[in-house]
Amino acid sequence: MTARSVSLGGLELESGVRLDAVTLVYETWGTLAPGRDNAILLLHALTGDAHATSDGVPGVERGWWEDLVGPGRAVDTRRWFVVCANVLGGCQGSTGPSSTDPATGRPYGLSFPLVSIRDMARAQALLLDHLGIPRLAGALGGSMGGMQALAWLGLFPRRLDSVAVLATAASHSPQQIAFQEVGRQAVMADPAWAGGAYTAAPARGLALARMIGHITYMSGPGMAEKFGRQRRGHGAAATFGQDFAVEGYLRHRGDSFVRRFDANSYLYITKAVDDFDAFDPLWAAPTPGPRVLVASFKSDWLYPAQQGREIATACRRAGLATSFTEIDSRWGHDAFLLETERLGALLKVFLERPGVVG
Amino acid sequence: MTARSVSLGGLELESGVRLDAVTLVYETWGTLAPGRDNAILLLHALTGDAHATSDGVPGVERGWWEDLVGPGRAVDTRRWFVVCANVLGGCQGSTGPSSTDPATGRPYGLSFPLVSIRDMARAQALLLDHLGIPRLAGALGGSMGGMQALAWLGLFPRRLDSVAVLATAASHSPQQIAFQEVGRQAVMADPAWAGGAYTAAPARGLALARMIGHITYMSGPGMAEKFGRQRRGHGAAATFGQDFAVEGYLRHRGDSFVRRFDANSYLYITKAVDDFDAFDPLWAAPTPGPRVLVASFKSDWLYPAQQGREIATACRRAGLATSFTEIDSRWGHDAFLLETERLGALLKVFLERPGVVG
Repeated sequence: MTARSVSLGGLELESGVRLDAVTLVYETWGTLAPGRDNAILLLHALTGDAHATSDGVPGVERGWWEDLVGPGRAVDTRRWFVVCANVLGGCQGSTGPSSTDPATGRPYGLSFPLVSIRDMARAQALLLDHLGIPRLAGALGGSMGGMQALAWLGLFPRRLDSVAVLATAASHSPQQIAFQEVGRQAVMADPAWAGGAYTAAPARGLALARMIGHITYMSGPGMAEKFGRQRRGHGAAATFGQDFAVEGYLRHRGDSFVRRFDANSYLYITKAVDDFDAFDPLWAAPTPGPRVLVASFKSDWLYPAQQGREIATACRRAGLATSFTEIDSRWGHDAFLLETERLGALLKVFLERPGVVG
Repeated sequence: MTARSVSLGGLELESGVRLDAVTLVYETWGTLAPGRDNAILLLHALTGDAHATSDGVPGVERGWWEDLVGPGRAVDTRRWFVVCANVLGGCQGSTGPSSTDPATGRPYGLSFPLVSIRDMARAQALLLDHLGIPRLAGALGGSMGGMQALAWLGLFPRRLDSVAVLATAASHSPQQIAFQEVGRQAVMADPAWAGGAYTAAPARGLALARMIGHITYMSGPGMAEKFGRQRRGHGAAATFGQDFAVEGYLRHRGDSFVRRFDANSYLYITKAVDDFDAFDPLWAAPTPGPRVLVASFKSDWLYPAQQGREIATACRRAGLATSFTEIDSRWGHDAFLLETERLGALLKVFLERPGVVG
């Protein structure tokens, strides 16, 4: 379906601040069963949005999990009622720093309160209330989406049959924080950012942040395979233009990003990710609790498999039926978006045959 | 000794451009033997300088290889005559983009010609001519210094008894290029850079470049050990200030860097590193050629051991007596500066007992 916008009223944030008017933009695919027991929530990553799939509808733009979600796909929309919402703090229609502050009539900018990964999950729970969904057959997400899945596990275990936690960590390591921090610094170093009160986007800073991010999303061998030491042959080396193919690619990805993403949202969302700690405080799971699937990807050096194993260990200690898989892939962190065949096979079995995985 | 400056006349660069007046700043330690056969050339990394050691002289600032070079140390200055020069293109006294262009009386800025790693080696060879050193007992360097050692091996194999090539690659992979490119973009995105014609340093851009670099010089586990998820407790999170300890550390390292390094030099030198390809064209080594020691460090994910192995394989194929070692360390790429005990033991044997290593 096309995206819908819903006003969910106020929300008290983890910080104690109350956000008076929370709007989420969301899409759904498939049909909610009369028993309301076939809902699956998809949780998007850092710069994702509600548009996870075209659902196979001709002429509709492909979504970020297109090959995994749709009729006959791993998350089969003929069987499941699938929901995906742009996160709180985002910039694709949901309430975030670029939204209009009702108190001033101007964009919040830096007066927007800090939001947490748990706040994102709480806003999603309000959306499910609105949609009349008491319980999820599954909450699935990769990277920051995986963190939201862990937040769901901590906050609403009784509303979940299962969670799939992909390519993520229970909390960011200092290296992971550091990469995000230089991205934030790049945004804030751009004079156009203007302390968050920009009218035109701080394009160079935001593009730079995205370029840094992109390097960490790819694997070294994957980049070597894709670009090697190929040059673009512009002969512009003396002016330090994009000489190697990889440089031009990064620049292109940075520039495209600026057209679709808000700089302040980038600050708020990356900060939410850095601040998140799934197991602080340690949660106690109900018995029987949700089934848990944890997956990491072999060439993902940004979220190494060890962090996935730690999540699985903590879930098992909490008494949850948990399975951990390290999926072979050469696509680095991006594998949770690209390795659709292997991941799809795993998710399908996990969702449809509860006894087999998790 | 204190640094000296020497004018070496003109140099035709690899690009075909002639640089009319090349000055190098250098230091030496120890005494050149009457047979002139005890000279060792140290080759510094990206942002290093001629000051490799205090040589144990009280009151003199520590050098970048302090614990490896000096009386009684692995590179023993009672035995060896040790030379280290700031590279061509640098900013610690040697000719570079911040030098005065004799044609205009103003700093070169971007009118400075592109220099290559081989040009750096050629300038060093002129310095050795000036010092009356026909031949080196060893040329030793890590990271970009290791690339210079490989350039020496290709250009002047008959002037070398041995080379030690540490923590480096024969050529940069696209991932390595990408990390340097975002650093360059950070510098050039700073309006203060002014197309290279700045009067005051583009401080934020250069600091940002250094922060990105720093992350790649440390290992993930090393950072976890040093910083964990410690916070500085400023409560300044809402303004996206340095909240986690690792953020404050990076900011501090970035800011210190600006006080000692020139932004245009950063562009020229990183570009020289990205452009370098040790084996293009493939060189033929003389017989018997120099002995070669190649070492990589286990947690160095920026220059993985596989790249060291490739260098060693190429050297063996060229008929050179070559030894490869992967040194255990948790300090990432910085290990070539920090892992002084293990590296020192290896270098000492390599230099003093030719039959044992290499």
